[in-house]
Amino acid sequence: MDLGTAQEVLDAALTLIHTRQHASPKRLDEPGPDPGQIEMILGAAGAAPDHGRLNPWRLIVIPPERRQLLGAAFAEALVERDGDATEVQKQEAMAKAFRGPFLVLVVARLDPALGDTHPQERIISAGCAVQNMLLVAHAMGYGAGLASGRALYSRQMNLLFGLRADEKPLCFLSVGTVSRSKPTRPRPLISDYTSTL
Amino acid sequence: MDLGTAQEVLDAALTLIHTRQHASPKRLDEPGPDPGQIEMILGAAGAAPDHGRLNPWRLIVIPPERRQLLGAAFAEALVERDGDATEVQKQEAMAKAFRGPFLVLVVARLDPALGDTHPQERIISAGCAVQNMLLVAHAMGYGAGLASGRALYSRQMNLLFGLRADEKPLCFLSVGTVSRSKPTRPRPLISDYTSTL
Repeated sequence: MDLGTAQEVLDAALTLIHTRQHASPKRLDEPGPDPGQIEMILGAAGAAPDHGRLNPWRLIVIPPERRQLLGAAFAEALVERDGDATEVQKQEAMAKAFRGPFLVLVVARLDPALGDTHPQERIISAGCAVQNMLLVAHAMGYGAGLASGRALYSRQMNLLFGLRADEKPLCFLSVGTVSRSKPTRPRPLISDYTSTL
Repeated sequence: MDLGTAQEVLDAALTLIHTRQHASPKRLDEPGPDPGQIEMILGAAGAAPDHGRLNPWRLIVIPPERRQLLGAAFAEALVERDGDATEVQKQEAMAKAFRGPFLVLVVARLDPALGDTHPQERIISAGCAVQNMLLVAHAMGYGAGLASGRALYSRQMNLLFGLRADEKPLCFLSVGTVSRSKPTRPRPLISDYTSTL
């Protein structure tokens, strides 16, 4: 790498990783990334590990003019799982589609015909791609966050995004300007998640 | 962030992400990371997104004195799936356990009692943790790579690592000094994995 001394490179990496915080799509406003920045965010995904070069995941960008369709799918998914949902709840479900100026769906490609790589390993690759995108958005000064929820796994979502039977929606990733910051969340201790054989 | 201008921070992030390459454990020799560096690598994992704060994955470090046990498990898993495996094949399976000076197993915790977060989303979190570790190892100048294979999903591996029924081994992560470099692998184009709704 050609960016400073070894210590500076390491410090930059650690700072980047440790200062990133989840930003809920609710707290992400305009401005979002411009087309050049979007290309850098999406391009970082392609630098994820990909055992066997399967491209075991794909990204679907939801542009502003399609948010209405996504909102309708959120509302329909709500009604399907809860026939008693109120009008207010339906409006709330629909509103989720309009949060975050830049929005992308991450989809796992689990088709066995792609290659031998285990489904779990394909989702690990997708997770690596997601982290790269979150880190680049953070490096640009944007907030970013993942979102899921029951609607993500609904029939409506599969239909809207044209997912194949062997494709699974993993999460939405939103990027924008943080409107109100929240206290930084404490991280777990290494000992909380690490043991030695 | 306090490391240079906004442009320098972004350049550092993009360089870090795009210059990282997979290094097969076969090509990873001593020296590996020292204890302080290992702490930084493992600590980066804890900065992954974790919806609901479940700690939905855990890491198990395999120290040098346990490599023999891991090698035996690799060989036994081979024999179980192929009773005709030759002595040479068994030795090769065993040898895999000794590759890479620093070796850690990443395990998904899929216990429903941990919380509502969907299993796929838990594996995404693990993937984010993995990418953070790969990036920090790369920032230190080490090579790193993921490894899997059929033995990973074997009964022997579950037993050796004491995994619960609701825990799934995801991959091994190895870190060390790259002994022989390989040509850099071309990345996919953004258009290979991205579409617009």
